[in-house]
Amino acid sequence: MVLSDIEIANSVEMEPISKVADRLEIDPEALSLYGKYKAKIDARQLEVLKDKQDGKLILVTAISPTPAGEGKTTTSVGLVDALATLGKKAVIALREPSLGPVFGIKGGAAGGGHAQVVPMEDINLHFTGDFHAIGVANNLLAALIDNHIHHGNALGIDSRRITWKRAVDMNDRQLRHIVNGLQGKTNGVPREDGFDITVASEIMAILCLSENITDLKERLNKIIIGYNFQGQPVTARDLKAGGAMAAVLKDAIHPNLVQTLEHTPALIHGGPFANIAHGCNSVLATKLALKYGDYVVTEAGFGADLGAEKFIDIKCRMSGLRPSAVVLVATIRALKMHGGVAKADLATENVQAVVDGLPNLDKHLENIQEVYGLPAVVAINKFPLDTEAELAAVYEACKKRNVDVVISDVWANGGQGGVELAEKVIQLAEEDNHFSFVYDDQDSIEEKLNKIVTKVYGGSGISLTPAAKRQIKELEELGFSNYPICMAKTQYSFSDDPKKLGAPKDFTVKISNLKVSAGAGFIVALTGAIMTMPGLPKTPASEHIDVDAEGNISGLF
Amino acid sequence: MVLSDIEIANSVEMEPISKVADRLEIDPEALSLYGKYKAKIDARQLEVLKDKQDGKLILVTAISPTPAGEGKTTTSVGLVDALATLGKKAVIALREPSLGPVFGIKGGAAGGGHAQVVPMEDINLHFTGDFHAIGVANNLLAALIDNHIHHGNALGIDSRRITWKRAVDMNDRQLRHIVNGLQGKTNGVPREDGFDITVASEIMAILCLSENITDLKERLNKIIIGYNFQGQPVTARDLKAGGAMAAVLKDAIHPNLVQTLEHTPALIHGGPFANIAHGCNSVLATKLALKYGDYVVTEAGFGADLGAEKFIDIKCRMSGLRPSAVVLVATIRALKMHGGVAKADLATENVQAVVDGLPNLDKHLENIQEVYGLPAVVAINKFPLDTEAELAAVYEACKKRNVDVVISDVWANGGQGGVELAEKVIQLAEEDNHFSFVYDDQDSIEEKLNKIVTKVYGGSGISLTPAAKRQIKELEELGFSNYPICMAKTQYSFSDDPKKLGAPKDFTVKISNLKVSAGAGFIVALTGAIMTMPGLPKTPASEHIDVDAEGNISGLF
Repeated sequence: MVLSDIEIANSVEMEPISKVADRLEIDPEALSLYGKYKAKIDARQLEVLKDKQDGKLILVTAISPTPAGEGKTTTSVGLVDALATLGKKAVIALREPSLGPVFGIKGGAAGGGHAQVVPMEDINLHFTGDFHAIGVANNLLAALIDNHIHHGNALGIDSRRITWKRAVDMNDRQLRHIVNGLQGKTNGVPREDGFDITVASEIMAILCLSENITDLKERLNKIIIGYNFQGQPVTARDLKAGGAMAAVLKDAIHPNLVQTLEHTPALIHGGPFANIAHGCNSVLATKLALKYGDYVVTEAGFGADLGAEKFIDIKCRMSGLRPSAVVLVATIRALKMHGGVAKADLATENVQAVVDGLPNLDKHLENIQEVYGLPAVVAINKFPLDTEAELAAVYEACKKRNVDVVISDVWANGGQGGVELAEKVIQLAEEDNHFSFVYDDQDSIEEKLNKIVTKVYGGSGISLTPAAKRQIKELEELGFSNYPICMAKTQYSFSDDPKKLGAPKDFTVKISNLKVSAGAGFIVALTGAIMTMPGLPKTPASEHIDVDAEGNISGLF
Repeated sequence: MVLSDIEIANSVEMEPISKVADRLEIDPEALSLYGKYKAKIDARQLEVLKDKQDGKLILVTAISPTPAGEGKTTTSVGLVDALATLGKKAVIALREPSLGPVFGIKGGAAGGGHAQVVPMEDINLHFTGDFHAIGVANNLLAALIDNHIHHGNALGIDSRRITWKRAVDMNDRQLRHIVNGLQGKTNGVPREDGFDITVASEIMAILCLSENITDLKERLNKIIIGYNFQGQPVTARDLKAGGAMAAVLKDAIHPNLVQTLEHTPALIHGGPFANIAHGCNSVLATKLALKYGDYVVTEAGFGADLGAEKFIDIKCRMSGLRPSAVVLVATIRALKMHGGVAKADLATENVQAVVDGLPNLDKHLENIQEVYGLPAVVAINKFPLDTEAELAAVYEACKKRNVDVVISDVWANGGQGGVELAEKVIQLAEEDNHFSFVYDDQDSIEEKLNKIVTKVYGGSGISLTPAAKRQIKELEELGFSNYPICMAKTQYSFSDDPKKLGAPKDFTVKISNLKVSAGAGFIVALTGAIMTMPGLPKTPASEHIDVDAEGNISGLF
């Protein structure tokens, strides 16, 4: 019988979180407990520990995702447990999962099988309230905008050009496009509006990129909420909103400490979208983890084209973080899908399909080695039906790049299933690397876009819609051309066409719109309609979620 | 120099919350810490302690509120500190403040001066996340409704008759009336909708009336979300929503423990609206407090007509709680406003105005003694400009009812300023009482309404709009006639006209609409438009709220 994730999670006795913290020698005064198994670490410890040497940062990324699943988080959790098994002081830094999707299809997002972070039901439901605080700060700013207009609009905000949306941590398609302020003059001013899911709020990206509360407040004040009738940007500072928004986030800024099923410390903090934002856990969590651990495993969103590129060009660029090695996660199943096999046919051995799918993996490896300048190892997240011949095809392909391939069996065996991977990672992290960004700050917006597409995606260049051209000119005039780019593109392909699997060539990427996230500090380049508010499926997962009289949760996967 | 509430709060060193808990002999295993100064007590302790004798329950209520302010929470906090000063094992049970109004005019809601509960900035901002959980549960149900319609509407929900609104914990008038589901068939089904502030959600009332998580889930499933095309109610159970909603509330159901400035234990839990809901902290918090304390001070919403009546007819009726004594709070300033003085003129001595305002206080005393059958004491919350002659008028009036009047000076002096009040309360609580409800379960809806208006408000009866008549018939047919009534009426007058101060006579109360809160278990009778989503003022309080680099909050009052 296969146990569900929550059944496995519940079968393991957690350590009190203060004991987990003791192993990292965290000052007990800097620890705020949230129940017995969760805590926040005061982010100001970074200042206290500033002279302590940082550990090595290991980035886990993946091939272009497919419906077959890759298991990036599972591999990350298993890897850190394996590092701990080998006696290393290891810490993992991960994103917090979004609450909304838990009720949809996706279920939990805290690893799987015997490689999970726990308490998984808390991490997937409310955790320590960070996302709620982000939602409140987001909606406070929204209320202040409309309240300002209602009370006379002294700033001359053009209600047709408000870019700040409201937020709710729920999959609720009904709120994507609304008209509000209806029913007369006491009830606001009618306008078109909409809601994003909370993780898509710029405040999430800001929280994850802030170095401290002063930086957080300054970034919040820089948020552009829209434009006035003269076409000039209106900011949160103009609405005197930064102080109150930062006050709302006073606890959310501190990283959360939990543990893996094997009691390895896990810092889980922040969770921005990986398309319209950069998709990584907070800078503060990663930096704190590096102070406490000799090896820190962290993860980027989606595949290595979108996720790792943003990890490097946005998170590392802003924060000064530098990874020592990269783990590229793949599954035989996913490679077969890149090779053209339908999901229903994945159970059949098909070496040729693996071979046909390998160019996707190879292009990601090329990027990691030659564009980002980092040493890499491929982790094959093991599934029961993988065959020796299929695996051999992967070994063969990676030999050409001088990259080792390691089978990771952490879903079934936890840290023990990742020891070989951990040994390889330890070795790689000692190698010299030639870390570099994809583009320079001073490159023009168009140059940056072109470098991402040609160097990372393997395309021939970009095409710009008339709107995108106009927006680039506006952004340059407003002084944002030195900002890094956050590409909002499908995660399923290197190109902007989700159907082009493998490693497509000779494509251009069409940039339809650009907008600035002035507080987060990047320019979002949209290659089409990007969904920032998911919907629920016909039979939502919520129908199976339950709690018993003792407070035990069931139905989370 | 007068210090602000947060300055006073910050000048006092709090005790670690585990020490506060130890004084109540709370099982450490039942305590979940939320940082150093907040904790949740496992509500299942009620079962563990079921054979322990309950303490005495003291209800604090007030005259009809005026813009002059009465200081009900301040008096409650000072009273419990005074009881502790006298060596009693005293606990206070209060509502959690709503987050939205903190950014508006109102500022904090955790007492004032030297009679506060702390950490006030946490209590006023996120606290332990209960309200966020309520918002999520509310919005999950809303998303499930529209998702059901979007995917074919098998239940035949009439989208024109959906009564379940979305919720946000923000003063945001722009969201009162909206149209959502716009922009084509992938984005929902267009309909009229709206948002309430989270505290107005029926889920808040449900959480506050539930005895345990099983009861909570059953009540959640009973929620009527609207009607189908045949006019029959559609419930949360029909949408299979109860389990997931209860799962979301798994932590929120446990009462929160904090402390007063004098380290007296305070259970702060739940905060339903006092008009469309019953306005009291949770049943679980009050019951747990009675297990841990010999004296439990608690508070009802608004004046003794609306708030205490609901405390008795809804909360006590459902839970079996029985108060031993009642404190009626008044200020000389407020009595003068009831006597016809404008707010600007309150600084001038005006004995006649006090005398003219006393009928309001007298009618509330009559209700407490003769309708609710409980012993009462009047607490005059002292203001610097109160004169001896004005106070003498109050003594005189209360002597006729054989009720003592005590000056409470807790705002300036904390517990020491409430010792005389505490001594009187201890004495009253030993008296026999003749506790009774205003109406019986088996009275018809119309009889219940008539009894509230004639016995409590002093009116001559009710008038029903045609809509209200039809709704009563519907509710009777649906089997809800045994539910208690929750009157949604202006708090400023015994009548339904906020301008009729004092103790008006010969009025009827017009019931315009009735709706059932089937999960909470009461029928809401509306006497006009009741605001369930406040707005922000022209200069919102948020403009002055700030946080410094060390995380200290300023600008909360």
